[in-house]
Amino acid sequence: MAVRNASQGILADDKTEQREQIIEMLTKAYWMEIETVMSYITNSVNPDGIRAREIIESLQQDIQEELGHAQQFAARIKELYGVVPGSLEFNAEQSYLQPPEHQTDITHVVRGVIEAESGAIEHYNRIIEFTDGLDPVTNDMVIAILHDEEGHRRLFEGFLRELAPDETR
Amino acid sequence: MAVRNASQGILADDKTEQREQIIEMLTKAYWMEIETVMSYITNSVNPDGIRAREIIESLQQDIQEELGHAQQFAARIKELYGVVPGSLEFNAEQSYLQPPEHQTDITHVVRGVIEAESGAIEHYNRIIEFTDGLDPVTNDMVIAILHDEEGHRRLFEGFLRELAPDETR
Amino acid sequence: MAVRNASQGILADDKTEQREQIIEMLTKAYWMEIETVMSYITNSVNPDGIRAREIIESLQQDIQEELGHAQQFAARIKELYGVVPGSLEFNAEQSYLQPPEHQTDITHVVRGVIEAESGAIEHYNRIIEFTDGLDPVTNDMVIAILHDEEGHRRLFEGFLRELAPDETR
Amino acid sequence: MAVRNASQGILADDKTEQREQIIEMLTKAYWMEIETVMSYITNSVNPDGIRAREIIESLQQDIQEELGHAQQFAARIKELYGVVPGSLEFNAEQSYLQPPEHQTDITHVVRGVIEAESGAIEHYNRIIEFTDGLDPVTNDMVIAILHDEEGHRRLFEGFLRELAPDETR
Amino acid sequence: MAVRNASQGILADDKTEQREQIIEMLTKAYWMEIETVMSYITNSVNPDGIRAREIIESLQQDIQEELGHAQQFAARIKELYGVVPGSLEFNAEQSYLQPPEHQTDITHVVRGVIEAESGAIEHYNRIIEFTDGLDPVTNDMVIAILHDEEGHRRLFEGFLRELAPDETR
Amino acid sequence: MAVRNASQGILADDKTEQREQIIEMLTKAYWMEIETVMSYITNSVNPDGIRAREIIESLQQDIQEELGHAQQFAARIKELYGVVPGSLEFNAEQSYLQPPEHQTDITHVVRGVIEAESGAIEHYNRIIEFTDGLDPVTNDMVIAILHDEEGHRRLFEGFLRELAPDETR
Amino acid sequence: MAVRNASQGILADDKTEQREQIIEMLTKAYWMEIETVMSYITNSVNPDGIRAREIIESLQQDIQEELGHAQQFAARIKELYGVVPGSLEFNAEQSYLQPPEHQTDITHVVRGVIEAESGAIEHYNRIIEFTDGLDPVTNDMVIAILHDEEGHRRLFEGFLRELAPDETR
Amino acid sequence: MAVRNASQGILADDKTEQREQIIEMLTKAYWMEIETVMSYITNSVNPDGIRAREIIESLQQDIQEELGHAQQFAARIKELYGVVPGSLEFNAEQSYLQPPEHQTDITHVVRGVIEAESGAIEHYNRIIEFTDGLDPVTNDMVIAILHDEEGHRRLFEGFLRELAPDETR
Amino acid sequence: MAVRNASQGILADDKTEQREQIIEMLTKAYWMEIETVMSYITNSVNPDGIRAREIIESLQQDIQEELGHAQQFAARIKELYGVVPGSLEFNAEQSYLQPPEHQTDITHVVRGVIEAESGAIEHYNRIIEFTDGLDPVTNDMVIAILHDEEGHRRLFEGFLRELAPDETR
Amino acid sequence: MAVRNASQGILADDKTEQREQIIEMLTKAYWMEIETVMSYITNSVNPDGIRAREIIESLQQDIQEELGHAQQFAARIKELYGVVPGSLEFNAEQSYLQPPEHQTDITHVVRGVIEAESGAIEHYNRIIEFTDGLDPVTNDMVIAILHDEEGHRRLFEGFLRELAPDETR
Amino acid sequence: MAVRNASQGILADDKTEQREQIIEMLTKAYWMEIETVMSYITNSVNPDGIRAREIIESLQQDIQEELGHAQQFAARIKELYGVVPGSLEFNAEQSYLQPPEHQTDITHVVRGVIEAESGAIEHYNRIIEFTDGLDPVTNDMVIAILHDEEGHRRLFEGFLRELAPDETR
Amino acid sequence: MAVRNASQGILADDKTEQREQIIEMLTKAYWMEIETVMSYITNSVNPDGIRAREIIESLQQDIQEELGHAQQFAARIKELYGVVPGSLEFNAEQSYLQPPEHQTDITHVVRGVIEAESGAIEHYNRIIEFTDGLDPVTNDMVIAILHDEEGHRRLFEGFLRELAPDETR
Repeated sequence: MAVRNASQGILADDKTEQREQIIEMLTKAYWMEIETVMSYITNSVNPDGIRAREIIESLQQDIQEELGHAQQFAARIKELYGVVPGSLEFNAEQSYLQPPEHQTDITHVVRGVIEAESGAIEHYNRIIEFTDGLDPVTNDMVIAILHDEEGHRRLFEGFLRELAPDETR
Repeated sequence: MAVRNASQGILADDKTEQREQIIEMLTKAYWMEIETVMSYITNSVNPDGIRAREIIESLQQDIQEELGHAQQFAARIKELYGVVPGSLEFNAEQSYLQPPEHQTDITHVVRGVIEAESGAIEHYNRIIEFTDGLDPVTNDMVIAILHDEEGHRRLFEGFLRELAPDETR
Repeated sequence: MAVRNASQGILADDKTEQREQIIEMLTKAYWMEIETVMSYITNSVNPDGIRAREIIESLQQDIQEELGHAQQFAARIKELYGVVPGSLEFNAEQSYLQPPEHQTDITHVVRGVIEAESGAIEHYNRIIEFTDGLDPVTNDMVIAILHDEEGHRRLFEGFLRELAPDETR
Repeated sequence: MAVRNASQGILADDKTEQREQIIEMLTKAYWMEIETVMSYITNSVNPDGIRAREIIESLQQDIQEELGHAQQFAARIKELYGVVPGSLEFNAEQSYLQPPEHQTDITHVVRGVIEAESGAIEHYNRIIEFTDGLDPVTNDMVIAILHDEEGHRRLFEGFLRELAPDETR
Repeated sequence: MAVRNASQGILADDKTEQREQIIEMLTKAYWMEIETVMSYITNSVNPDGIRAREIIESLQQDIQEELGHAQQFAARIKELYGVVPGSLEFNAEQSYLQPPEHQTDITHVVRGVIEAESGAIEHYNRIIEFTDGLDPVTNDMVIAILHDEEGHRRLFEGFLRELAPDETR
Repeated sequence: MAVRNASQGILADDKTEQREQIIEMLTKAYWMEIETVMSYITNSVNPDGIRAREIIESLQQDIQEELGHAQQFAARIKELYGVVPGSLEFNAEQSYLQPPEHQTDITHVVRGVIEAESGAIEHYNRIIEFTDGLDPVTNDMVIAILHDEEGHRRLFEGFLRELAPDETR
Repeated sequence: MAVRNASQGILADDKTEQREQIIEMLTKAYWMEIETVMSYITNSVNPDGIRAREIIESLQQDIQEELGHAQQFAARIKELYGVVPGSLEFNAEQSYLQPPEHQTDITHVVRGVIEAESGAIEHYNRIIEFTDGLDPVTNDMVIAILHDEEGHRRLFEGFLRELAPDETR
Repeated sequence: MAVRNASQGILADDKTEQREQIIEMLTKAYWMEIETVMSYITNSVNPDGIRAREIIESLQQDIQEELGHAQQFAARIKELYGVVPGSLEFNAEQSYLQPPEHQTDITHVVRGVIEAESGAIEHYNRIIEFTDGLDPVTNDMVIAILHDEEGHRRLFEGFLRELAPDETR
Repeated sequence: MAVRNASQGILADDKTEQREQIIEMLTKAYWMEIETVMSYITNSVNPDGIRAREIIESLQQDIQEELGHAQQFAARIKELYGVVPGSLEFNAEQSYLQPPEHQTDITHVVRGVIEAESGAIEHYNRIIEFTDGLDPVTNDMVIAILHDEEGHRRLFEGFLRELAPDETR
Repeated sequence: MAVRNASQGILADDKTEQREQIIEMLTKAYWMEIETVMSYITNSVNPDGIRAREIIESLQQDIQEELGHAQQFAARIKELYGVVPGSLEFNAEQSYLQPPEHQTDITHVVRGVIEAESGAIEHYNRIIEFTDGLDPVTNDMVIAILHDEEGHRRLFEGFLRELAPDETR
Repeated sequence: MAVRNASQGILADDKTEQREQIIEMLTKAYWMEIETVMSYITNSVNPDGIRAREIIESLQQDIQEELGHAQQFAARIKELYGVVPGSLEFNAEQSYLQPPEHQTDITHVVRGVIEAESGAIEHYNRIIEFTDGLDPVTNDMVIAILHDEEGHRRLFEGFLRELAPDETR
Repeated sequence: MAVRNASQGILADDKTEQREQIIEMLTKAYWMEIETVMSYITNSVNPDGIRAREIIESLQQDIQEELGHAQQFAARIKELYGVVPGSLEFNAEQSYLQPPEHQTDITHVVRGVIEAESGAIEHYNRIIEFTDGLDPVTNDMVIAILHDEEGHRRLFEGFLRELAPDETR
């Protein structure tokens, strides 16, 4: 005798297709966060100099925050009857966050962080749009994560305004 | 001289009818959580055996969480000018969460929890749908609670997959 | 090969009948505490007014305390080889703790709390008397709970002395 | 070489006008919270009497909460590329929360708090409506703040029911 | 000039003989707890397997609890003018709690724990009976310890019910 | 309409006389603890010397413990419908705990503490005897306090054994 | 070979007489605080009623604060080469803080607290005046204590304004 | 029957005029701190850039500290029988702490903070001078606050030495 | 004028070649830990079933521990004048830790963890051997990490003994 | 299909014999720590007198520390594929730490502790020597424990220098 | 454009000379505290024996306290526009706190501490006198430090009374 | 009867000469740490400017860390039967860490810290080399301290790379 499934909401039997689309979007988001964790560890250790300390302290805190995001995405994939992928499916994409030639070149790091956050913001806006009215739990969870990313981006834009004043609006 | 009421939002004078409908839905949700507290106390004490420990530990934590949900529902009823009902109005409905014949029969407990969570998920989806664009505070609060319930259900479905592999999708 | 049972004390084989009587008394106590939890949630949310704040704060703290009592009774039932009952066996009895007509009528609430505590005190005194010299563990546990209830009752009697001076000794 | 902006969501280049409207609304909300901080400090010190203690304790806690709201509004203004205004732009508006003639007149304070919360609730409902589907982060943040304000208002309405029973619904 | 002794209670001069009997019983209890500490360290390290984790976690917590019991017994011996014995007087008796042949044989461990707790329960019931009305402090202290042991025993009986259903009542 | 009193236990109407006797005994106990607080403050400040440090540290901790005992006695007097007396009814009796002539004379202090604890032990044994089977809550509470006092006395007897070996058994 | 004393400040050899005068004043202050501790225990237990809760909570906190003051006075007496007196030298003076006839008469308690604080404020002002420029450590310590007492007095004056409006300025 | 007032110190009846002068000075100090809270919120959010982080972190901590000062001033006004003013009496004066044209112009912010602290230091020195020997409690409280402000000023002077070396001594 | 380098130890100028060899080994270790973090997130979310809980809880704790190891390796690379590599250089190697076909197949996960730990143990033993007497700081750090990995491996070997008794020694 | 073992380090297949020798040494160390726990409980309760307090406090802290050592030894035995022995294999050897004839004879206790620590220091030096370059994890763990024991021994040697000056170097 | 300096108080331009005198006095105080830190580390490690434990524990706590004093003096020097001196300007003066010939000679240590505290007390009294009415912040800070030193001195005088009764008053 | 010494390890009688050599090296290390504490207090207070904040925060944390190192060295000297020297034997050597002419010259401070750490690293490498295989406890302790110093040095080298790019490798 099988237990019945919920007949309402995203977990209902007639929402299988949408669930799979959401899982695909969450899986991409999951990998973005995992790569960000990697990039932030790297960039919270390599840079030299006094000015670099602010960047380093900021990224060190973000490592835990981004790891938390990754775990939230993973848990939601599971809740929607998906499977979190293994390490063989990882593809690095953040070419802009690789170590610079000189470790005192923090403008390189700041630009890379802004680029990474911009990509995340765009993807998360898409998830929010897609899940609106369809899967309120995913929707609400991603809005909260989007808030974090917008805050990070704005902080590093501020850094860039000082370092390269003509690159920002 | 009477203080004026807010002229905007769910607390506005012209929203009386909708408020009452929401109160009714919240009252039902309140009783569901209260019965769940009861059922989880029972089922976190009775079961025997090593495998039962995981179930017990999970339910013991959920007692506090579900009690918190009940108190949130009660507080929201109050905020919407409703009255939280007294114990005489309680009607037990979770026939599937009564103690099994043998206290080592944990499959019975797991199935019961899934059933209870399914009912809650369905009802909370209805509240979310009804309050969307009408009462954003209730809407947001219930989404957060729905997230908890979906997580519980998924965890116990995982248990059932091991205990009775052919009952779950 | 069966493990042997303790040959001394309430868990000994020749104490089966007394154990069952104690379990019955503990089950009643369990339901009294569960209903009190329900009633205190209700009455810690509904009342309006400044004077009601003291009552509300007192009851909010008691919710956790009474829930703890319920869990202690449940655990002891289990230790004595009983089974904690399910929600279908619950029967509401605290007619005196239902919401009053006007939510500023706190005298109604105070009187209800005193009534509930009086019933608990009487029942717990009976358990203490019955287990004295027979089951020292239950005896000791119920004395500690009795102390809490006597303290609550005395506090609310003090409230009543102010609200309705001629109703108390 | 300028870093690219996000092409999706409220931070996208084609949303400039809407961002400015939101900033204007958030700036008004910011000043409302700042004035509330001021008014609550005043009214958590001046009142005399035993009944006043509940009001005072409630307002003392709210000072930190409202300050937190102000800081959230300020941070969001910054994230949307606005500038938080300086003290010269402050204009007091809470005429109803000035110190009463007699410091034991707590009904005056209670009425003033309800008035202030009503204004906030109305304005925040407007922001929520405007940002719905446009800026989910601001939308979500303001809903959470709205919940706090509705709770405060309801609490003080309860106080007023006792102090001036015919002024409330 | 000698200070006077208390003329009332178990510390009075005319209670010397009873004190010595109690000391003897407490000394036996002390050694039972010490050996249990030893056995629980052993059995919280040796067992292999997933099911063994519950047993191990339970025993790891109990090590500190049982050590605490031993220290309470030792302190009470001192308070009654006795001397806590040295390690040369230790005699191992828990033959049933020695490491099994295969470290995945957890039924062996569970049976051993039940046996050890049964012995403790019997001995502590005897102390409680003997000190009743004679030495209320020792009486009260041993009742509290008895409660712990009954709880442990019941938990492991539950484990045995699953592992060897026909060995338990 | 008066609320009914509990018909069982020490709070029942037919136990008035016994309650008054218990209140009298608790009042004496209350004053003993209050004077001990005073004496321990004095004797935790005055003594000079290295050896005095152990005494001072021990008494400093006991100040809070004895104050706690006094507050427990006061609360129980209240619960039994008595009135805690005011400062005018205080009569000092601990002549043996007044400051010695030389502040390095710690033997004087040690002897005084033993004398004070002996008196308390005797009085508390009497309360325990009187309340046995009559008022289990008071009985249980005083046993716990007696345990503390026996421990203190034994510690200071140990001190005296070193300072004046022929004064102790 | 004697160690030398400090040649500067209140501990210098030529300040013996002034030190003794300060010790006398501190000893009086010490007894005032000790009696206040006693009176506040009494008055934090006896009063009945909802309004009494604010008074009780305030006094319960003050017990620790006033005990701390007493211990500070005692320690300073010691530092100035004085001896803290024993319990036999205590004389009760707070006739105005004895229990009232009816335990709901909180105006009696409020008036008594104001009277006690007024006496303390006067005495501490005298110590501050006497030690100004002579013993800055005592001076600074007593100013901090005076601040506490002024705050307590003002709070209870506020209570009295409500309870008996024509008794306060 | 009116309670008597203290006949000694700043609260005595013959000190009415001086109390009023102190209240006036404290009211000005109160408004200075309130405006500083506002200005520091603004300036802890607006600035962009890495160097700005140190300023921002420093101001964020100071917000709570300055708010605490404001609350201390308010409480002291109350203790001296004054009334804390309402928001309508606020007048902005810190023209030098308004947002600069470019948010990376931190020299503007640093200069503004120094200007604000200089004004506070001057006013607090005047209060200290006026209350010396007259109101030791206010005197002591303001000295402690002055210490904080001198520390802040010195820190920001250090910042200015780096940013604009020829502007500081 | 250049600062001088330390003339002793692994940081000395004549140790450049060895430093580079150590950096290479640490870089490999760094990537092993990073992949392990990834694999453990995956495998702490995917598995279903009661027995899987122990595995999941164990891996969830290890995520933080392994991330800490990665950060220690990264920091040591930096201290030895190396550069931590970016995400583009990551190559997945843990084919044995990819998600199994059925999420209740925990034997697959247990085997994968043992395999991963075995590889780490081998590599870390090599680093320890190479740095012995050459770079005591790296040596000591890696021994501590090795201890963690040996413990993990042993725990999962124990799990495998139960799940697949004939696969382990 | 068996999982492979690590081919490097002490866990490699070709190190079986050495592992067994280490296990034997660790087993002896385990029993030494267990007996020390026993002896320290005894000697932290029995001694009388002021000077004994320092000894007692020191031993009370060491009980937990030595228990921790025992658990570390046990865990390492397990990691090396050994089995922690049961209580029947315990043999008491610390004849020098049995209770003395008079409980104020602390020199006896101090000498006993030194003797016990000397034995441990010798045995642990042997383990360190044997594991050097062979099993770095055990080596490192035992060095840390040795440090503790050397510190304890030195402390008690200092005590003995005062008690029996001619017995120490 | 230079920022203006405060025109009031010790930081005013016309107080330069007095500031320099205060800086000189604070610099001497700074070095006294630094040497005391050194001496207390030495004397909290060297002494042997049971009686030495009280001294050692007291000095260990004082290390942090005296270091805090040094840091307060350093910060105040900075605030008054002085420069904290470097280690080359340190001159040891506490000849009386060098290690004694025998490490059980604690009378030597006690005498040395009293001597050091006496010197500090004298110097701090001079600073307090000089800054009275001139620099209230320094004045207040040094009074608080003086209180600590008087307390330390008195404690060690008490020790000396026991060790060498005829050396103290 | 003398207690026996350990016959194994660095504390054995035949290791006297080596112990003395180690003590000499530890004494030098002790003084290096003490002077570093002094220098870091100075340099954590004097510097002005925003960039100086990172240096100051880093040095403030290091004060406690270096003090801890000094206390570890002192304790180990004691354990090896040495005597920690007194303040008269201190000789300042860190000429490079004296205050610079201008307090905004942080390059001076950074260079000085690197110089100090280089000297420590060299000396600690020598101790590690000398104690290897001879005194494993000292060896292990100094390796851990060396790790801290290498980390500090690397951090400040990074600062120097920014401030004076051509001075570092």
